Amino acid sequence: RILHRLLLVYLIMSAACAISYWFAGMTVFDAINHAMTTVSTGGFSTHDKSIAYFDSSAIELIGVAFMLFAAMPFMLFLPLMLGRRSGLFSDGQVQSMIAVYFSIATVLTIWLIFTGQLESLDAVRDAIFNVVSIGTTTGFVSSDYTTWGSFAAMVFFFLTFVGGCSGSTSGGIKIFRFKIAAVMFRETLQRLLHPNAVFSRSMQARPLSDEIVASVMAFSLAFATIVGIAATLLAAAGNDVVTSFSAAATTMANVGPGIGEVIGPTGNFASLSAQSKWVLCATMLLGRLEIFTLLLLLTPTFWRD
Amino acid sequence: RILHRLLLVYLIMSAACAISYWFAGMTVFDAINHAMTTVSTGGFSTHDKSIAYFDSSAIELIGVAFMLFAAMPFMLFLPLMLGRRSGLFSDGQVQSMIAVYFSIATVLTIWLIFTGQLESLDAVRDAIFNVVSIGTTTGFVSSDYTTWGSFAAMVFFFLTFVGGCSGSTSGGIKIFRFKIAAVMFRETLQRLLHPNAVFSRSMQARPLSDEIVASVMAFSLAFATIVGIAATLLAAAGNDVVTSFSAAATTMANVGPGIGEVIGPTGNFASLSAQSKWVLCATMLLGRLEIFTLLLLLTPTFWRD
Repeated sequence: RILHRLLLVYLIMSAACAISYWFAGMTVFDAINHAMTTVSTGGFSTHDKSIAYFDSSAIELIGVAFMLFAAMPFMLFLPLMLGRRSGLFSDGQVQSMIAVYFSIATVLTIWLIFTGQLESLDAVRDAIFNVVSIGTTTGFVSSDYTTWGSFAAMVFFFLTFVGGCSGSTSGGIKIFRFKIAAVMFRETLQRLLHPNAVFSRSMQARPLSDEIVASVMAFSLAFATIVGIAATLLAAAGNDVVTSFSAAATTMANVGPGIGEVIGPTGNFASLSAQSKWVLCATMLLGRLEIFTLLLLLTPTFWRD
Repeated sequence: RILHRLLLVYLIMSAACAISYWFAGMTVFDAINHAMTTVSTGGFSTHDKSIAYFDSSAIELIGVAFMLFAAMPFMLFLPLMLGRRSGLFSDGQVQSMIAVYFSIATVLTIWLIFTGQLESLDAVRDAIFNVVSIGTTTGFVSSDYTTWGSFAAMVFFFLTFVGGCSGSTSGGIKIFRFKIAAVMFRETLQRLLHPNAVFSRSMQARPLSDEIVASVMAFSLAFATIVGIAATLLAAAGNDVVTSFSAAATTMANVGPGIGEVIGPTGNFASLSAQSKWVLCATMLLGRLEIFTLLLLLTPTFWRD
């Protein structure tokens, strides 16, 4: 029953997104296609130039809104459907996600204006759209942010890892894992200040179990190790350092565009060698299935039971 | 008393290292200097070309041995001084460290031979020395490994993070943190296979407390975040992506050489801007003091008590 309702949330969101895109000037075909890849945070466009093709701030605004919705925990939309108040914007994970995206977008906006690359309104528009797109692991692009200098490239590289909320369609490491690590960070600092205090762990008023902490750590180690191995294999296959690292990260997080000339926002993966593509097939699968699902299938115990 | 003994271990190791270097052909001055920076895993050489200046496989072999000793937990040397058997090579952390370095060195050796860059003996020699040097965060170089291609550059980049054992003079993330994360990884996989099983955590036959797990997680998050912020600031200061990222990593881990043309094994940090150097001062301090020591000094509670 819950599954059906979540499906309904997904369908309503897609329909609303498609209608909004259509109203903003897309053709019906483009509107439906872009709605499907916005709500799935998939990011595939029917145009080579991605969202930049439309050059419409209305379309970009709609994209930002629906990418954000799609990166929120879908469970939180259920109360809304029953006419009840939803804790959507009081949810800690949603708040952190929005705070992270908008502080990064603000820094980039200031950078773009400060370095004289864009007028203020254009800077805000381009920074917000691309940050939300890469952050939510959607992967649409409204401009070639790799021309914004290596500072911007670095920001987008790290943003690749962030991801959206758990229980959403987005990939990446996801906000809640960073939040749990932040709880551990605060606890460790407190423990050093008050060595004899007793600490109880909680997040959003719920106790934080040992298993969750262990699984977050396991996931992070696995994620980092796989990105590392994949990047090294890609380098061995003849790609340069930036392309290798960025390709490994962007496929593990299921984002799409990377940084560097080859796989940047205006490039694509077509020119990469067959060996490179095999590596990236593996990282895309591992990333999308959150590693453990795929690893479980490879353990003998799984098949014995 | 333990502190005095550890100091004695340090002095004996330095003296043994200096004498060995001198026997292998260094001048007394060079031998003493290099012994001091080998045992401290500091890596500063009196020659611009670092260890490559001597071009002596005996000196490199001595270097490898003492860099490895210096990266082992100093406590494990105490039984040796009392004439008792030491658990040095049966220690899990020491075994993992050696296993990691030598498997990476083997892969690099095969790469060097396979790509026809070096004869087999030279390949073994160069791979082992540089891997042990970067892995233990010493930072001596016996050849310019950035000319070995982007595969090797990537390997050395990731190696920068590894570090030696806890309780040694080396920096970096350190082997035991990876081992603890690996324990969590195995536990999480086991839990998915046997959801009702009860797990007890242990490492090297000692139970693994919750505090340690939390502190490893806190450290890893802090380490990654600081490297990320520093790399982004360095990029904003005008450095390219590879230099920025590598400089942040190599200073946080207290290694020394990075990858890329500017700060690679044959380069140095002299040409970097003043802003860049301020950033790197911060990362070097944070890295050497394992982050929390420095952060504690910045909390108001610390000064109030």
